[in-house]
Amino acid sequence: MRTLATLQSLRRQRALVILDELAAWLRVPNDVEDSAAIQANAGHLREMLARRGIHSELWPTASGRPYVYGELCRLGVRETLLIYSHYDGVPAGEGWHSPPYEPRLRSGGADSGFVHWPASPAAIEPSWRLYARSAADSKNAIVAVLSALDVLRAAGMAPAMNLKFLFDGEEERESPGLAGIIDRHGARLDADLVISASGELHQSGLPTVAFGVRGIVQARLTLHAAAHDAHSGHFGGFAPNAAVQLAHLIGALVDGDGRARLPGYGKDAAPLDASSLAAIAAVPPIEHEVAQRLGMRELPRDSLQMLINQPTFNLRGLAAGGVGAGARNVVPGSAVAEFDLRLVEGMAPEAVCAQLRDGIAALGYPIVDGTPTAATLRQCGPVVQLDCLAGFPATRTPLDHAAGRRIVARLRALLGQELVLEPSEGGSLAFHHFARAGLSVITMPISNDDCNQHSHDENLLLSTLYRGVDQWLAILAGDGQALPSQSGETS
Amino acid sequence: MRTLATLQSLRRQRALVILDELAAWLRVPNDVEDSAAIQANAGHLREMLARRGIHSELWPTASGRPYVYGELCRLGVRETLLIYSHYDGVPAGEGWHSPPYEPRLRSGGADSGFVHWPASPAAIEPSWRLYARSAADSKNAIVAVLSALDVLRAAGMAPAMNLKFLFDGEEERESPGLAGIIDRHGARLDADLVISASGELHQSGLPTVAFGVRGIVQARLTLHAAAHDAHSGHFGGFAPNAAVQLAHLIGALVDGDGRARLPGYGKDAAPLDASSLAAIAAVPPIEHEVAQRLGMRELPRDSLQMLINQPTFNLRGLAAGGVGAGARNVVPGSAVAEFDLRLVEGMAPEAVCAQLRDGIAALGYPIVDGTPTAATLRQCGPVVQLDCLAGFPATRTPLDHAAGRRIVARLRALLGQELVLEPSEGGSLAFHHFARAGLSVITMPISNDDCNQHSHDENLLLSTLYRGVDQWLAILAGDGQALPSQSGETS
Repeated sequence: MRTLATLQSLRRQRALVILDELAAWLRVPNDVEDSAAIQANAGHLREMLARRGIHSELWPTASGRPYVYGELCRLGVRETLLIYSHYDGVPAGEGWHSPPYEPRLRSGGADSGFVHWPASPAAIEPSWRLYARSAADSKNAIVAVLSALDVLRAAGMAPAMNLKFLFDGEEERESPGLAGIIDRHGARLDADLVISASGELHQSGLPTVAFGVRGIVQARLTLHAAAHDAHSGHFGGFAPNAAVQLAHLIGALVDGDGRARLPGYGKDAAPLDASSLAAIAAVPPIEHEVAQRLGMRELPRDSLQMLINQPTFNLRGLAAGGVGAGARNVVPGSAVAEFDLRLVEGMAPEAVCAQLRDGIAALGYPIVDGTPTAATLRQCGPVVQLDCLAGFPATRTPLDHAAGRRIVARLRALLGQELVLEPSEGGSLAFHHFARAGLSVITMPISNDDCNQHSHDENLLLSTLYRGVDQWLAILAGDGQALPSQSGETS
Repeated sequence: MRTLATLQSLRRQRALVILDELAAWLRVPNDVEDSAAIQANAGHLREMLARRGIHSELWPTASGRPYVYGELCRLGVRETLLIYSHYDGVPAGEGWHSPPYEPRLRSGGADSGFVHWPASPAAIEPSWRLYARSAADSKNAIVAVLSALDVLRAAGMAPAMNLKFLFDGEEERESPGLAGIIDRHGARLDADLVISASGELHQSGLPTVAFGVRGIVQARLTLHAAAHDAHSGHFGGFAPNAAVQLAHLIGALVDGDGRARLPGYGKDAAPLDASSLAAIAAVPPIEHEVAQRLGMRELPRDSLQMLINQPTFNLRGLAAGGVGAGARNVVPGSAVAEFDLRLVEGMAPEAVCAQLRDGIAALGYPIVDGTPTAATLRQCGPVVQLDCLAGFPATRTPLDHAAGRRIVARLRALLGQELVLEPSEGGSLAFHHFARAGLSVITMPISNDDCNQHSHDENLLLSTLYRGVDQWLAILAGDGQALPSQSGETS
């Protein structure tokens, strides 16, 4: 039995191998809009699994982008982890300083100089960054866990728990096939805990584990005041102005500080229990830095961590007429507001859509489906077309969940540094599919929070890659109980 | 001396010649963005003038798009009219049912059948429409007045007043050279009255004369609440939302019915005098039809004509984050509102910009120039970047203006039908340049109000073309005093 320090030493020896394996995979374009590219990536991933003796299966979906499933188990091991991540990437888009599928090392930001590919592990600087699509979201997460298996094997050890792997090829399209996959294969996915391996670290940069995610409702509100725009010179003051009416409607739905005025909104939110409040209070403060960057004069009364454990009512977009070069002298006949509402435990998306519908109607706007005709407007006056996408609910794993607590304890023991433990992260992920199958999920992101995911110049800070491997070593080694490897038993 | 009925009969005989001349000119592309095309059109126009024995000059401008100036005078004639119109056209754009520079006749709307080009004047139906760029805005206006001169000449008559012509080649670019032209050539432009010949008839379709135009201020208001957008999952509820703050700010500036709440706005507006109120009351009601088309349940208390003789405070555009396919889960750091404010006599554009600046500041938003840095926002809190274009003031010619009253009387006498006499039209035109030179302007549009100017499928209803010629006959013939033509004296 080796110590954790020994495992880290072995990991350092493999630093270049790890980087090379990630870079080789990043050279395989994985634009989620290209199903053939996703299938090629699935093949590449299965070879990576096979090299570790992990048998894998392709689970097809209607989108043509398969899930890759694998298992690694040993007789006599009782605890089972399901590791969920994804291998597709958002389309490369414009604005890259280097080609998105040609991984490059730089000493810092995207305008810093290139670094020659290192010739030895000792030459690698942890402050370097690897630039490529999916370097941080989320091929790195998959490479990290597989690299941890290699280190364990090099140490003559095997994981202290059975492992199941579920790698999603359509995550960037909102995983339309995940519910069906879980329905079909629920029994095989059974585990003591699901660890979702992707996402960004807490802004403090500390290792991060979240026991929940928020739900989401996305609502597009189109206020139709007239059947068409009117010339502002000929009809201004006569034709109803949808943009003005929308501004007043927004004022009635959200106060000036962005808090919901919608009747009933948030009343079903489960109160935060004592352990959640304690965890929230223990999260390192980063409010000052965030406020500095955003240019805020004052901090909100609540901490950021407290706020992301509560529901929000965010106005994410506005459009009417035109602005800038597109400005025209019209009275806008219709105007659009886009909202994303983040839900916490207890709030049902369908109920939130109903609250929105009722609240708008109570303000005097009949709700219609589709674009109203002039005849409808003549009869009803201004109306609101509400396209409410009832997303999904929040999911929470209790902070005292046995397998979850063990993971946190192992991470703390290995890393010897404080951990950010979030009752819920602020983002929204569709973990309710797992919850429906009785599976509890926690999230362990390992990417730097300035990784530019979903944008140009996506990049991974190398120190986070290697610490990510260490985190998996801490988890997989178990409470000093990692098992000696027995040849031939890991398939 | 011929009667007006005789003149109309001669005009009918020339109906095909008139149409052919307009169509020939429409085949010369006049995209205002193409200065060479504009110069070619100026040449074509000068030939049209020369065919009438009118000597013309090219008055160059910095934009490379010249004004064409011409004179037609006779010894002993005391009254002088300056006829102002334009020969450039907005870019053709997309969506045309037939090529924009290949004039075509149709029996009705753009999806109605083509009509063969008529072989004789008697074959022309007044309900046909001519489709081409500038068919209605405004080559038709120039052809109409020149055709009236032809009819007079065919009747052995000459105009009862001296005529000056000023044809603008950069009107669709806001006539940047007009002020300089008037400064340089003010004395030569002197006239008893300027008739601006372009634009659309009143919606009733009746012959229309307007004695004023409104001024305009265009203001772009960018509210900066944060230095950049923030992820709505990670920072929603913490990061300030510029879109929400903008909605509240708009609510403070404009009431739900679109009326200005801005302190001081409109207080300098000159009250409407008794003759203006009488003229407004005499305009045929078209509110019901407009409201039907727009889909309005209720009519405003004031008539449309009353409203366009008052200032407006129109919100013409809104933008923040994204909507529809462009929607993203962000807290918008900035948000934009575009206003166009229509001014009436007495309101100074610069004073309106100051009111806007003061009113926004009084609501707690410091005004800044340009995009603020994070440091500025930390110091000041949310700020507003106000880009206020102090356009130009309204201009009005008194309804009892002697030359103006004579024009109206002649039109009423000839046409034997009621006239729409507007104290001011709703639109905004830069007639203050003429006013500054001591010139009074009235507007006589002749194009159908559904002519689609500035858009695809621009079209001219033929009946409005011929009635436009008749209107010029009524004006030029004078109070039964048109002069017998004397060979050689019309150059």
